[in-house]
Amino acid sequence: MSELRKDPVVDRWVIIARERGKRPSDFTGFDKNKPKGFCPFCPGNEDVVPPEVLAYRKSGSKPNGPGWRLRVVPNKFPALKDQEELYKHGDGMYDMMNGVGLHEVIIETPDHDLTLSTMPAYGVEDVLWAYRDRLEALAKDERFQSVIIFKNQGMAAGATLEHSHSQLIALPIIPKQIKEELAGAKKYYDYKERCIFCDMVDQESSQQSRVVCENQDYMAICPYAPRFPFEIWIIPKTHSAHYQETSKERIESLSIILSETLKRLDVVLDIPPYNFVLHSAPFRQDVDKHFRWHLEIMPKLTRIAGFEWGSGFHINPTPPEESAKYLREAKIID
Amino acid sequence: MSELRKDPVVDRWVIIARERGKRPSDFTGFDKNKPKGFCPFCPGNEDVVPPEVLAYRKSGSKPNGPGWRLRVVPNKFPALKDQEELYKHGDGMYDMMNGVGLHEVIIETPDHDLTLSTMPAYGVEDVLWAYRDRLEALAKDERFQSVIIFKNQGMAAGATLEHSHSQLIALPIIPKQIKEELAGAKKYYDYKERCIFCDMVDQESSQQSRVVCENQDYMAICPYAPRFPFEIWIIPKTHSAHYQETSKERIESLSIILSETLKRLDVVLDIPPYNFVLHSAPFRQDVDKHFRWHLEIMPKLTRIAGFEWGSGFHINPTPPEESAKYLREAKIID
Repeated sequence: MSELRKDPVVDRWVIIARERGKRPSDFTGFDKNKPKGFCPFCPGNEDVVPPEVLAYRKSGSKPNGPGWRLRVVPNKFPALKDQEELYKHGDGMYDMMNGVGLHEVIIETPDHDLTLSTMPAYGVEDVLWAYRDRLEALAKDERFQSVIIFKNQGMAAGATLEHSHSQLIALPIIPKQIKEELAGAKKYYDYKERCIFCDMVDQESSQQSRVVCENQDYMAICPYAPRFPFEIWIIPKTHSAHYQETSKERIESLSIILSETLKRLDVVLDIPPYNFVLHSAPFRQDVDKHFRWHLEIMPKLTRIAGFEWGSGFHINPTPPEESAKYLREAKIID
Repeated sequence: MSELRKDPVVDRWVIIARERGKRPSDFTGFDKNKPKGFCPFCPGNEDVVPPEVLAYRKSGSKPNGPGWRLRVVPNKFPALKDQEELYKHGDGMYDMMNGVGLHEVIIETPDHDLTLSTMPAYGVEDVLWAYRDRLEALAKDERFQSVIIFKNQGMAAGATLEHSHSQLIALPIIPKQIKEELAGAKKYYDYKERCIFCDMVDQESSQQSRVVCENQDYMAICPYAPRFPFEIWIIPKTHSAHYQETSKERIESLSIILSETLKRLDVVLDIPPYNFVLHSAPFRQDVDKHFRWHLEIMPKLTRIAGFEWGSGFHINPTPPEESAKYLREAKIID
């Protein structure tokens, strides 16, 4: 059974996923398991994965059979489990809780060979809409405080299956990084009486040097202090803390900017591995005034080594102004 | 010129190392540059790297020539530079400072084929003594607030040169993770009037399930909430915030436990890539009561993907009790 444990010194929870339990011998060849042959996410193989919790499919087509454009299914090897009750307890000076949560996979397309950057615009819209649908549904589950939606594209970014997919983990706590963003944004608001994301959008808009692309609703920027070369954030231009409140029109314009941004990355970095993560406000938190959801895209181009792991400090060889310039000037085919 | 920039939302500085400046094309083949042939750290090649700042060598042998057991030299491609003055300034809502700092390499042995786990005990002692010597010297430089000493062992852990070495970065600020440890330890002390590391050593000592090995002065444990499988911390049994105050006898017993721990890792995980980092108290900080220096060893066995990068939350498939058991039971040759 999975459990959550808290580091006693810093406020950092980890998931000990016993059921994914690894013996030493499981690690030694970890670089070699390239996916090949059979794909559990391809149409026709629906019965290989757990039954779908959401699908966009041809009217008349049956659940858990072909005819779908997008499917959301529970992860077959979940990091957390959909158990009934959360219980917390101590172990001497230490704190733990059982691993209550959900771990789902968003299978983004039936076509094994497409990616989020090569699929048609309506495909990207489906994906972004599925994120919204799942967040809306999970916000009602009192066991969960937050949901992390993320994508690992490419083996070097941690993808173990090639077929384009994202993942979702619903958590009984607020993860460290989201907590820090909320606290930082609150501190800024308390001091300035302004939203930090509003100020950021204003400054980026007037300076332009870190802007990758924009449309009426969103801005894609290389942030001022990026951890990674070619890191990009997509930020809404108007106030919105909870992603699941995004309107149909704005999901559409988000799909356009996301698709364009990923195409630019593919051109400049020759189809790089990347991670992205959606930072949406935790449920039932009064953060509307000072927080804004955003999407963080992190290409995996450099090795993260001892200095970074040991200090939380990152060395980034590429200034964001340079990254943004390359991305802005890339010639993409619409 | 390097610069330090601060993320405006979370309290996280990054180093933008312009001089290591990377164009997009530099990233595409980043996996292929295996070191081979010529080694700049081998005896006879002393003139290829900048002049030594410290060396343990045969009496009578000349600086920057052969005859050394260990050398410390400036990094040829430093992330930060030994500039005269620190200046901080704003850029609208953002904060930056120039990249004042030091970046040094500790060449641990003249023997290209040895590692920290295979070199003789006196070699490990030299390395730990060099850490102490450099920390003691740098503590007097008012420009620096803290020093991070770390090691990348193996390509997968970020080492770009094979010859066994560690690195040192002196910083004009306290990095995020050290700041968080100091804050967490202070909070615990304020609440309990006890040092959190004392309590940890006590509990680990009585439970034994996470202990890897120990001697009169140190304990090697798999921490309660580890981010990585087989993560190990080496903690002094008695109070000591600043590593550079460690006595000669204790450096010797530290070399014994570090050597044993690394040998155990090599046996259990078949010579794994790993990072380690020394967390010593920042300079001129009143933290003696609640903080204790320690060494964190992180084998690089799993891929860190979108969930971890996006949430600060880690999924670890191996409970520390299991890691510790494997490590404890490993048969090592002394």
